[in-house]
Amino acid sequence: MALVNGNPDSTLGVDDRGLLYGDGLFETLAVRHGRPCLWQRHLARLRHGAERLRIPMPDLRQLRHEAEQLVGPCQSGVLKIILTRGVSGRGYRPPDDARPTRIVTFADTPRYHADIMTRGAHLRICKTRLGSNPSLAGMKTLNRLEQVLARDEWSDPEIDEGLMCDSEGNLIEGTMSNLFLLRGGVLLTPDLSACGVAGVMRGVVLDLAPRLGLSPRIEKITLQDLASADALFVTNSLIGLWPVSVVDGLKFDCRALSESMIRMVMKEGFEA
Amino acid sequence: MALVNGNPDSTLGVDDRGLLYGDGLFETLAVRHGRPCLWQRHLARLRHGAERLRIPMPDLRQLRHEAEQLVGPCQSGVLKIILTRGVSGRGYRPPDDARPTRIVTFADTPRYHADIMTRGAHLRICKTRLGSNPSLAGMKTLNRLEQVLARDEWSDPEIDEGLMCDSEGNLIEGTMSNLFLLRGGVLLTPDLSACGVAGVMRGVVLDLAPRLGLSPRIEKITLQDLASADALFVTNSLIGLWPVSVVDGLKFDCRALSESMIRMVMKEGFEA
Repeated sequence: MALVNGNPDSTLGVDDRGLLYGDGLFETLAVRHGRPCLWQRHLARLRHGAERLRIPMPDLRQLRHEAEQLVGPCQSGVLKIILTRGVSGRGYRPPDDARPTRIVTFADTPRYHADIMTRGAHLRICKTRLGSNPSLAGMKTLNRLEQVLARDEWSDPEIDEGLMCDSEGNLIEGTMSNLFLLRGGVLLTPDLSACGVAGVMRGVVLDLAPRLGLSPRIEKITLQDLASADALFVTNSLIGLWPVSVVDGLKFDCRALSESMIRMVMKEGFEA
Repeated sequence: MALVNGNPDSTLGVDDRGLLYGDGLFETLAVRHGRPCLWQRHLARLRHGAERLRIPMPDLRQLRHEAEQLVGPCQSGVLKIILTRGVSGRGYRPPDDARPTRIVTFADTPRYHADIMTRGAHLRICKTRLGSNPSLAGMKTLNRLEQVLARDEWSDPEIDEGLMCDSEGNLIEGTMSNLFLLRGGVLLTPDLSACGVAGVMRGVVLDLAPRLGLSPRIEKITLQDLASADALFVTNSLIGLWPVSVVDGLKFDCRALSESMIRMVMKEGFEA
């Protein structure tokens, strides 16, 4: 099910800059019992990205109305909002009077291993690196080929996620998630000022940290830092939080993440 | 005018990975008097990129037939071929049985300043940098946001092109062209092993160099190298070659490029 600029449609013009250049942004929201979770945070990130790319932001009430058209009152699933710069003349130059294309779709929740919360996620380190570019860092743009190449590195269904490094070998994020390390009472997550996507659930966890009795720190994280962590977890808007039990053979104790912490993140991410 | 998978159509599914992730490639060919120029070179680059991204390559005769359906026997213009990985399930993972989408469009030749060959192109240095990523370097992928942001830096119609550097400040290319420097009898062009698009016309010029009495060299080029160049020019498949007369106030002598050299490049690019 999809709405394109408010109309029931499942197609886009082949001259749309979203296709031609990946000139746009997207948000992926969990929907629980008919309600898009973390709506304000997702729309704030979309707005921030749109400002940085100079794409006019659609009306929020209109977007909300379109989401409600697609999502029945008791449904759960995944709501995706895509915002492109729309159609323009030939060439990279953005038009002064851009008329953006907004696409809203609703689909089923993806299935992951049922026991992932107890057995912990199995991760690998990807060979594909993230190029550094502060102009694009943090945003969830339609330029996602690095993630596609990284995700294409493995087909083993027992591997749940791959971690990606920048060109210097610092850990940045998972292909579809953000990474956190616990060490002592400190909650570490990689600095995303040069590359990576600043996930909405990452923001939730960072904001919750003081209530969890943890001091949040955003900094460079190396592969060596992994080995010295008490526990690892990854986050995104659909999974919430996954404890990590293995990274390329290196083992971590899932039970080092307190149940109350997991519960609090899941509650804030899906019920607040 | 457009053909999508061989059918007259101007739309694409909103679930196509070309839109969702920029998961695809494109080629832009000049068409002169009904003939797509440098067809073999463009299709060779497309094939090479498709192999690197693991996207199945369409049948070449079929593509040629589709180009001929769009282009009348005496027409000139721009033929664009887009190849995406097509539709898949949710998430970045490429499907094992990808059914690519191919889009072929034909449009008018863009207009540039009529006197650009005599007055020389006016260039600027863009602030937007190119992120380094050997996994993607050289290919003309649908991830082009860096070029969009760079091209958005100026609106002065007297500026014809912007040059882009990598994160270390080495010159890499123009937003829509490749860069060449002449110094003594040496023809220099930036190394594109970490970022940049390896233009088809760049390949033509490099191959012609010996016949032009020049030794081609592919290497790191700094802003300091610009100042010591005898002449500069930029290339792409639609413009052929533009002599450069100004880069951010720094002046160059267009006449340092021999007319016979320009003629030979244009002939090879548009008539061979």
